[in-house]
Amino acid sequence: MAAITRLRSLLFAPATRPDVLVKMPRSGPDGVVIDLEDAVPPDAKESARPNAREAGRALAGEHPALAVFVRVNAVATEWFANDVADACVPELTGIVVPKMQSSDHVATVARALGDAGLAHLQVVAGTETALGVADARDVYRPPVTVCYFGAEDFVADMGGLRTESSSEVLYARSRVALIARVSGVLALDQVVPSFGDDERFLADAAQGRALGYTGKLCIHPAQVPLAHRAFAPSPEEVDRARRLIDAYDAAIARGEAVLAFDGQMVDEPLARHARAILAAAEQSDT
Amino acid sequence: MAAITRLRSLLFAPATRPDVLVKMPRSGPDGVVIDLEDAVPPDAKESARPNAREAGRALAGEHPALAVFVRVNAVATEWFANDVADACVPELTGIVVPKMQSSDHVATVARALGDAGLAHLQVVAGTETALGVADARDVYRPPVTVCYFGAEDFVADMGGLRTESSSEVLYARSRVALIARVSGVLALDQVVPSFGDDERFLADAAQGRALGYTGKLCIHPAQVPLAHRAFAPSPEEVDRARRLIDAYDAAIARGEAVLAFDGQMVDEPLARHARAILAAAEQSDT
Amino acid sequence: MAAITRLRSLLFAPATRPDVLVKMPRSGPDGVVIDLEDAVPPDAKESARPNAREAGRALAGEHPALAVFVRVNAVATEWFANDVADACVPELTGIVVPKMQSSDHVATVARALGDAGLAHLQVVAGTETALGVADARDVYRPPVTVCYFGAEDFVADMGGLRTESSSEVLYARSRVALIARVSGVLALDQVVPSFGDDERFLADAAQGRALGYTGKLCIHPAQVPLAHRAFAPSPEEVDRARRLIDAYDAAIARGEAVLAFDGQMVDEPLARHARAILAAAEQSDT
Repeated sequence: MAAITRLRSLLFAPATRPDVLVKMPRSGPDGVVIDLEDAVPPDAKESARPNAREAGRALAGEHPALAVFVRVNAVATEWFANDVADACVPELTGIVVPKMQSSDHVATVARALGDAGLAHLQVVAGTETALGVADARDVYRPPVTVCYFGAEDFVADMGGLRTESSSEVLYARSRVALIARVSGVLALDQVVPSFGDDERFLADAAQGRALGYTGKLCIHPAQVPLAHRAFAPSPEEVDRARRLIDAYDAAIARGEAVLAFDGQMVDEPLARHARAILAAAEQSDT
Repeated sequence: MAAITRLRSLLFAPATRPDVLVKMPRSGPDGVVIDLEDAVPPDAKESARPNAREAGRALAGEHPALAVFVRVNAVATEWFANDVADACVPELTGIVVPKMQSSDHVATVARALGDAGLAHLQVVAGTETALGVADARDVYRPPVTVCYFGAEDFVADMGGLRTESSSEVLYARSRVALIARVSGVLALDQVVPSFGDDERFLADAAQGRALGYTGKLCIHPAQVPLAHRAFAPSPEEVDRARRLIDAYDAAIARGEAVLAFDGQMVDEPLARHARAILAAAEQSDT
Repeated sequence: MAAITRLRSLLFAPATRPDVLVKMPRSGPDGVVIDLEDAVPPDAKESARPNAREAGRALAGEHPALAVFVRVNAVATEWFANDVADACVPELTGIVVPKMQSSDHVATVARALGDAGLAHLQVVAGTETALGVADARDVYRPPVTVCYFGAEDFVADMGGLRTESSSEVLYARSRVALIARVSGVLALDQVVPSFGDDERFLADAAQGRALGYTGKLCIHPAQVPLAHRAFAPSPEEVDRARRLIDAYDAAIARGEAVLAFDGQMVDEPLARHARAILAAAEQSDT
């Protein structure tokens, strides 16, 4: 399976809730995650695995355009090996592995997938510990093709506090996006736990998009359309980008490569940026 | 001596002022520092050492629960070796070494302590130069058990400017907290020089706490109770954490591991965070 | 040629516009750049080289105090080698190389300069890609003596969005300043494309200065005096620094090294900072 190129939204639901899992596609997410980790209590880890298998197979079978993942428990836990072996099916797009923080973790995941005949699956690495942020460059290697920044877990690991401004995670969140870009890995932005607060979600997603994230983890179906809105260019952005490109192309045709446009000095970097906005807008219309 | 687990406040006073040194415990700090570095002019460095010895022995002897340190001059200075040999006593909790920035510095400090029969002392590393921030991971190694971020010195070394927002040090301050966490070292937050401005101190300490710092350098006794307030959870936080844990435990008992609480989706990371707040609250009651 | 010590402003103009190039010194910039990269369209790259040679020689000859550079195209482009060989003259202060991101790039630049008999030229490295920011420490090595942070290109490379707060580049912009300082390289701050908005330029430059940048790329002559104002200490800063140093020196003379000044606890780091402000003020009067 080719590396995923678009995951504006990745919707999570507990593997213990088959009724919820089956409804996940309704909100139209780009990807869904059947969660065996944080959403499943320790004494239900084993009994949740058959649910995950069944839901994974059903979701992948009935929604071929949907990216379907299972989130297993972290490599260091007693559950990891059997989560991969018993809860994941070949029809999945991939697995999500939380709290990845070393090249050893990557090797262990690759080996577990190979042993289970799942070497073709993609791996989404969760970066949500201090060490995971510090050593992200060791983690964002094949078979990892996507990563996410988990702000709640990261701040808990740091012994810090989450605040509305998210300035306490700006360093880590920026670093994850940078190392993802350098490593050719898609970066997904932090959860917004307050699922009823649309404005907060949109503001948080706008920050994430500015930093280079291409989508968001969603913990409620209502967040999915918000994510798609946030990670698509606004009509004003698209209009401005189109006018900028027209003016720039005309300048190039005249043999110039710099022009004043709306009071801004526009050259190739700004033109490139405008083209990226237009490309994203076209993609989000489809 | 076991590694220190709590330093909400670390109060500094000049080694040249025995009258001030003796009063330091009055404000109830978790730790005190007899300063031979920034607070002592060059021509008083030598004469200050006997003061430091005497005050160190007296403070440690009379206040067994107090962490007592001597801040020596930086490794690169002409004073370092004799500061360790002549100003430090075995009764100290440890020494504070400013401007640490390489593994060579760490080795030099360890050797100097060994030569002086002080190998049991803990080392607090000052990170307050560009190189110290860049190479913190080489510095936060035994015998270093605690570090602090020195914003004034760092910004002076960068040729930058301190501003009230502290956005100019957000990168360095975040990085120091991260590398400290990764290295298992306690992180102490920057000084607030304007000692009469309680609101500023509390706001700055709240930022530091959100970033994962566990205490603050204090340059005036009035800052000590403010630090203790800032690094203890507020009554609202404690109340919310308690209610969240109750609701979460009830959910777990029902076989669920995710619940909606006050409009937030709560799972294990948020529960873990709430437990940390309750633990900190209990600690600060003692 | 000795390494440059002051570049408050570095003014760019297209190599395709000899009429503009010749006027660049009028606004009094510390340095000028004859641009063959973003400001020159692909089909004019070759024909622009003789302009660059001629303008470089003329500007350097007629303005001995002015630092004169040519910006060549990036190492990875088809134009780089001939840009160095055919557009640069020995009279230049140096060349600007955009999108530097590896030690290989540095070696290639050094070799190209040597082959062209230009080994004495300084190199200004553009850091404006994700990889360039991540691996800046491999790039800021001789012959690189100056670097700049290119926010527009960086954000375009990240797939992010530029915002007025610049919080989306705070990590990268801070990191570039830090690694520059650690490497002994002068750091120049990001472009402000909206050249008519003086307030925005000054606010952006103030952020850059606080972070440790010593000057700004300018894309319009009107930005040059603004840059000089922004990178010089304000009269209030100078006055306060002078009073602080007076009070501090008096304290030292009394055998003290800490004093309360304007409600701040002042010690050696703050005094050092004040001295740096006075030095910068004197420099900017010249």
